[in-house]
Amino acid sequence: MTHIAMPAIDEAVIGRRDEIVAGLVAILGAEHVIATEDERRAYETDALTAYRAVPLAVVLPGSTEEVSKVLAFLNGTGAKVIARGAGTSLSGGALPSEDAVVLGLARLNRIVDIDYANRVARVQTGVTNVNITNAVAGQGFFYAPDPSSQLACTIGGNIAMNSGGAHCLKYGVTTNNILGLRMVMLDGTIVDIGGSECDAAGYDLLGLVIGSEGQLGVVTEATVRILRAAEGARPMLMGFDSAESAGACVAAIIGSGIIPVAIEYMDRPAIKVCEAFAHAGYPLDVEALLIIEVEGSEAEIADLIARITGIAEAFKPSTLRISQSATESAAIWKGRKSAFGAMGRIADYMCMDGVIPTSRLPEVLSRITAICEGYGLAVANIFHAGDGNLHPLVLYDMNDPDQLEKAELAGGDILKVCVEVGGCLTGEHGVGIEKRELMSEQFTQVDLDQQMQVKSVFDPGWKLNPAKVFPLEGRPAVSA
Amino acid sequence: MTHIAMPAIDEAVIGRRDEIVAGLVAILGAEHVIATEDERRAYETDALTAYRAVPLAVVLPGSTEEVSKVLAFLNGTGAKVIARGAGTSLSGGALPSEDAVVLGLARLNRIVDIDYANRVARVQTGVTNVNITNAVAGQGFFYAPDPSSQLACTIGGNIAMNSGGAHCLKYGVTTNNILGLRMVMLDGTIVDIGGSECDAAGYDLLGLVIGSEGQLGVVTEATVRILRAAEGARPMLMGFDSAESAGACVAAIIGSGIIPVAIEYMDRPAIKVCEAFAHAGYPLDVEALLIIEVEGSEAEIADLIARITGIAEAFKPSTLRISQSATESAAIWKGRKSAFGAMGRIADYMCMDGVIPTSRLPEVLSRITAICEGYGLAVANIFHAGDGNLHPLVLYDMNDPDQLEKAELAGGDILKVCVEVGGCLTGEHGVGIEKRELMSEQFTQVDLDQQMQVKSVFDPGWKLNPAKVFPLEGRPAVSA
Repeated sequence: MTHIAMPAIDEAVIGRRDEIVAGLVAILGAEHVIATEDERRAYETDALTAYRAVPLAVVLPGSTEEVSKVLAFLNGTGAKVIARGAGTSLSGGALPSEDAVVLGLARLNRIVDIDYANRVARVQTGVTNVNITNAVAGQGFFYAPDPSSQLACTIGGNIAMNSGGAHCLKYGVTTNNILGLRMVMLDGTIVDIGGSECDAAGYDLLGLVIGSEGQLGVVTEATVRILRAAEGARPMLMGFDSAESAGACVAAIIGSGIIPVAIEYMDRPAIKVCEAFAHAGYPLDVEALLIIEVEGSEAEIADLIARITGIAEAFKPSTLRISQSATESAAIWKGRKSAFGAMGRIADYMCMDGVIPTSRLPEVLSRITAICEGYGLAVANIFHAGDGNLHPLVLYDMNDPDQLEKAELAGGDILKVCVEVGGCLTGEHGVGIEKRELMSEQFTQVDLDQQMQVKSVFDPGWKLNPAKVFPLEGRPAVSA
Repeated sequence: MTHIAMPAIDEAVIGRRDEIVAGLVAILGAEHVIATEDERRAYETDALTAYRAVPLAVVLPGSTEEVSKVLAFLNGTGAKVIARGAGTSLSGGALPSEDAVVLGLARLNRIVDIDYANRVARVQTGVTNVNITNAVAGQGFFYAPDPSSQLACTIGGNIAMNSGGAHCLKYGVTTNNILGLRMVMLDGTIVDIGGSECDAAGYDLLGLVIGSEGQLGVVTEATVRILRAAEGARPMLMGFDSAESAGACVAAIIGSGIIPVAIEYMDRPAIKVCEAFAHAGYPLDVEALLIIEVEGSEAEIADLIARITGIAEAFKPSTLRISQSATESAAIWKGRKSAFGAMGRIADYMCMDGVIPTSRLPEVLSRITAICEGYGLAVANIFHAGDGNLHPLVLYDMNDPDQLEKAELAGGDILKVCVEVGGCLTGEHGVGIEKRELMSEQFTQVDLDQQMQVKSVFDPGWKLNPAKVFPLEGRPAVSA
């Protein structure tokens, strides 16, 4: 990548590498400290692969207490600390630097307790998203937020980024499904935030920590809400001749007060690629395809389908197909959930993550097309339409530096449009390194100063994942 | 009240009263500055009437800009600032002190903009809760959180306390229904937090400010989510022979995954008083009464009623009545919504606001009875059972100082039980002055220090509503 500068590296810390590694080995034992360059290189990047840096060391603590000891030790060394779950961040949230120790949470993979009566589970934060649902599915429960990467990504990363997913339209994103956290501060202090019930008294530090991208502390345990799975669910496909009709149909459904479980949108380039990959039976002769899923008892499903198709009629869908079997439903979702992978087979792409008011969908979609055409690039749109969370995939050739730069510029322009119409820079991927410099499009310096002062309360020396979230310029001066 | 100490008054500020009043008059004009003692006395208390203090002055600014000028001026005077909506706080959140200026938001009562397509409204924070719904009801929309005081209380007060209401079981509390805020910092700076869409990028200061009880800044405008009203709604009454059966029935309904709009609970003393007042047709021969409301289309309502009554059967309700008309539904709700007023006709009471895991309902209810009996006091229970938000009314005689002290002690014991079983001190009334000293039951000093450091970022001199939320001991030293 070309346009994002990196903060200065603390060479003195790198000079003390042997001493720092020795201290970490004394705490964790050699088997849980990764020190050789070859092995450290495995942690040099995340799913935003264009950025790379080999960290000073990698540690894999096995308990909250070990995390506490590691942080208390590192706090005296000047090393930066990057907490890492599964490294699936699309915004570079887990990108290390040469003067940073990566604190991997992979060994904190235990489900501590499940309380079905109160519908909560206590988990360590290295547990993968899908394993929470796997642990409770036998009793008919599930954990709601479902990022496309849910097979790999950890609940710790979900908390850092306040992750979403297709089914968050009905159930909310991560912040709506977490009741409590155990967090280790940089000085090693262990704090419990929130609880297992509702909003606790006092300030809402729980909400503050969720989405703070590993900059306030290292979260080692979470109390998550588990929900009773609906009796059944059924997706339907609706094809339209124009983005305008599809967008207006989405706005009308949402405006009616119905909240389907999911409303996903694909444009013609995306439909073509996904159908070729997944053979989901998507119509190939439409400009826009909606996947709308409803759930409940048979009576509820029938009622919701009748109301939704009634609303859609006014927008003249050219295709309307209601899934008739579990196999058909699985194929419909397989196409959508593998969309990014399918697209990756035919082109490099940059995945944007802006949010807009749903009523502005048609206008923003045509502006996105115009922006990309202006740079001579193609774009495919696959996104969570129900809550206005866009994922334009800007297609380019990674081996052509000129195209790479144009794709980055187009991506920035698209996010500026999202902010301009009253939306925001990120729906579920976080700011990370990727959108750091765009934050001043959305926030004034006063707004950013407030946020940065809050960071300084938790981390006065800016050692916790400091390269992310805030523009490099305008940061507070911190002592080394 | 006896056991809650007040912070020291700054006599120097009181000595500068004339000068401070003159400065405020210069900004707002004399007609919007209340300076005579008789008129100031109207602001000496809120709905927690046992505490009183006549403020230094009261100002009624008419715009965000005027709020900004007033705060910038007061920031130089050393005066404390207490923002006030309608003064309906049950925890003493709007209680002033003699060295404080009350900043009343009554004139900020304008609905700025309504955007039905995107289901948001922009309102000034002096607008009453019910007037938001009134403004959008003609188009079939409503604002969801519905405190019992909704005819009087302002959205600004709701934001300060993160208020709830009977219908929050389905729709969430204030923090789930606010998308953006305009806030004035103590130095007069105006900041915009959040937006009109989803979670914004960066730290979640929106969640932090909601529920911060006027301690971080003065919120003057809010962007609220408005929802499409359901096609219909229907309450049902279920009476049980024991608290155990009623509590277990609530836990079973919630555990099944059904989220009714509301599940309200009354015990025998409460039923008797409410029925005498509202003639709602409540059964008088049961130990516990549930009011369960469902909503949706006719088909959905029928489906939900069938599923809920099916679940309830196992708990052998002695009464089961489904409302047959709008008149009957209105009477059922009138009894519940006027419960506190009805109780006030026969006894003084202290209204607690603890939250517990729903599975612990029967156990906690019997412990509450035992606690009150231990002090020789009666108790009535009326509360939001679906989300475990208890409102035990501890009955006593206000004119008997001994009973008053016992009621306070019983209230404290009840809240300690709530925390002990994994719940928390407050569900919707806030901490205020009332539960300030109990915060250390729920939080360690490390937890409280974190919260107080966050306050210090926004308000380094602790001038904004400082007597509230945090125990007096263990506070940071601040310069005057």
